[in-house]
Amino acid sequence: MLSKQAKEAIKIAQSIKTQQSDDLTPEQAVFLRKDADKNNSIPIPSDIKLESLDDPKGELYHYGTSNENVLLFIHGGAYATGSVKSRRNLCFGLIKRLGYDAFSVDYRQWPEAKHPAAQEDVMNAYKFLKKRYKHIFIFGESAGATLALTLTLQLKAEGLSLPDKIAVFSPVITQINILPSEYLLQERDPMLLGAGAPVPYFDEPYKKDPLISPIYGDYKGFPPLMINCGSEEVKYDDSKILNFLCQKNNVDVTWTVWQDLFHVFVLFDMPETDQALNQIARFLK
Amino acid sequence: MLSKQAKEAIKIAQSIKTQQSDDLTPEQAVFLRKDADKNNSIPIPSDIKLESLDDPKGELYHYGTSNENVLLFIHGGAYATGSVKSRRNLCFGLIKRLGYDAFSVDYRQWPEAKHPAAQEDVMNAYKFLKKRYKHIFIFGESAGATLALTLTLQLKAEGLSLPDKIAVFSPVITQINILPSEYLLQERDPMLLGAGAPVPYFDEPYKKDPLISPIYGDYKGFPPLMINCGSEEVKYDDSKILNFLCQKNNVDVTWTVWQDLFHVFVLFDMPETDQALNQIARFLK
Repeated sequence: MLSKQAKEAIKIAQSIKTQQSDDLTPEQAVFLRKDADKNNSIPIPSDIKLESLDDPKGELYHYGTSNENVLLFIHGGAYATGSVKSRRNLCFGLIKRLGYDAFSVDYRQWPEAKHPAAQEDVMNAYKFLKKRYKHIFIFGESAGATLALTLTLQLKAEGLSLPDKIAVFSPVITQINILPSEYLLQERDPMLLGAGAPVPYFDEPYKKDPLISPIYGDYKGFPPLMINCGSEEVKYDDSKILNFLCQKNNVDVTWTVWQDLFHVFVLFDMPETDQALNQIARFLK
Repeated sequence: MLSKQAKEAIKIAQSIKTQQSDDLTPEQAVFLRKDADKNNSIPIPSDIKLESLDDPKGELYHYGTSNENVLLFIHGGAYATGSVKSRRNLCFGLIKRLGYDAFSVDYRQWPEAKHPAAQEDVMNAYKFLKKRYKHIFIFGESAGATLALTLTLQLKAEGLSLPDKIAVFSPVITQINILPSEYLLQERDPMLLGAGAPVPYFDEPYKKDPLISPIYGDYKGFPPLMINCGSEEVKYDDSKILNFLCQKNNVDVTWTVWQDLFHVFVLFDMPETDQALNQIARFLK
């Protein structure tokens, strides 16, 4: 049974859905990002010290007591509409459970940039953190989950040291929106329309390139991975296939489906979010 | 419970699977086609009169008592390895139940040709039949099912008269082999490997073109459609999405899943094939 707050969140998600369209304009993307910053960001609490960085760009949150562990936090937003500030609440929810520092990377998005700008930026962030911290844990949601996967696939391909563990929430593993859930869950998904055009950030969304669509990745030797998604999201089958690819390659993978919940529901304050963050933190410890 | 013959067929399918590879060479394609002609074709029975045609190329089987109804039969084989002769048994099984004439179209395939050669050939066959017969019914299996769909989508787009009814068996609706069943049923599918490279017949398999991947088609006003597939085939999700697209557009669609059976199992003589052909014939009447 969903909490009262979750039912409320579903209504809000539904109102977001009605505003969506298949062709995001550059102006809309920039507006939505600023709007999220204005309406969804929270101030830095007194027990977290903010260090704003320019290269790599992003917010480094000092919370941990050592330089042992850091969380690389990668926000989502279709490579266009997401922002660091609007994800502070989620990121703080994680590091307070983990006792780690965190770096929320402000990677380049469309319309200002195109692929592989975001990939380069998360790679730079990772290399920067590797110099300061012993263990890197990654959390990514939606397009940020894609980047968590493509970053790790690239590290693996280049023989670099891998993150210790990765948690992805509502991952997107293909830029071609044709998986069955994109169609079959269209009515049920309260937030996303489904089966839409590829995001404008990629010039070649159809390319068989694991750094564009990690469904094409080689998961052999991938670090422990936790997947979370909602049962009612059009991106459900992305999680299903990712779980399969990891199991097939003997990756230590766990996949949790949150019944009756939707795409990146952890952006909402509700008991189900606490439950999910507790599980993720337990995994990332 | 599967019949003894079906269990035997699964063993044969499994032996075919072990011979498969992801990169079909031109020589293999031509060899497999000739091999199928040699080993799987049957002679024309006395109650069917064969008229071999050159333009459109194919075999016209005279069986019906009038020029009212004709079955346009479109074989499969990944646009490369199928043949008209090797599908005679299946085609005769249908027309004997239907009491119609049938034209089995010998469309151009790879390596001799590339897209849109096959599309042009089935279109020519359709237009030819339209002059001789009042009602056209279509049966297509695998890539032949794709062509049944792309042909009808093109007829619809050009405002031409549509076939009366269409039955597709184990349809393929996208050339990008990333649907979940391509992964999750890899072990269970006795015949197909799953998640392979696109067929070599298309230069642009990734293109968002309904005449390449009918998943992108507009099914509004589509004729009555019957879908059949096996529960254990890596192409299962193609049927699932096609059924959805048709339901969504108020097409008169029926989807039958044959439990524990595999891709185009009707190519094998077994009780389950009789059952399936009886259903299809009942629909096409």
